[in-house]
Amino acid sequence: MSPTELLPLADVIACCAPIAREAISAENAEKLARSLKAVADPSRIRIISLVASANDSEVCVCDFLEPLGLGQPTVSHHLKILVEAGILTREKRGTWAYYRLVPGALDSLGALLTSA
Amino acid sequence: MSPTELLPLADVIACCAPIAREAISAENAEKLARSLKAVADPSRIRIISLVASANDSEVCVCDFLEPLGLGQPTVSHHLKILVEAGILTREKRGTWAYYRLVPGALDSLGALLTSA
Repeated sequence: MSPTELLPLADVIACCAPIAREAISAENAEKLARSLKAVADPSRIRIISLVASANDSEVCVCDFLEPLGLGQPTVSHHLKILVEAGILTREKRGTWAYYRLVPGALDSLGALLTSA
Repeated sequence: MSPTELLPLADVIACCAPIAREAISAENAEKLARSLKAVADPSRIRIISLVASANDSEVCVCDFLEPLGLGQPTVSHHLKILVEAGILTREKRGTWAYYRLVPGALDSLGALLTSA
């Protein structure tokens, strides 16, 4: 799955009821699966967790490399998937890019899994 | 990822705080990613949704084939992944196997994604 195929999480949230409430359509199951796949990776879970638990709610791209033990190209690849999925926002300031959670994105994704 | 590598969702729930509460460890991120990957597939999302929204809370394996438009081997493959991940239970009665949601499994997985 290339990052450009990922739909923004906002689309999923708009389309889908919690999956336990009613049988989900094939089309909406595809959308939800894409959003979940964007999260369902160990490095991306750690990135999300680092951003979500950061003191000032944002993390410089330069501050992911050491805790993750990954190189810049790999980190940038994961960050791109999370931005394109609508889970993180990216803001360039000076030399570096800074990442924040899209407000409510994770909560909404979690809510689609929980009981109606 | 082979089904036998999936850890039961119960392990993930026991190990992990919500990912927004504190930076998740590499080991726990691996476990959570495996559980999310078990769900992050369009056919498996539809299976979960069919079971969760069923009137009597269970679905015969014979009743997945038509709504999913998939053959028995493919459906059985997806069901095995969901059982081994700790999301569905399987009970053989007579000719057929019947599937139910593990109580609380989806709620707990969703809760790991939502804010602490």
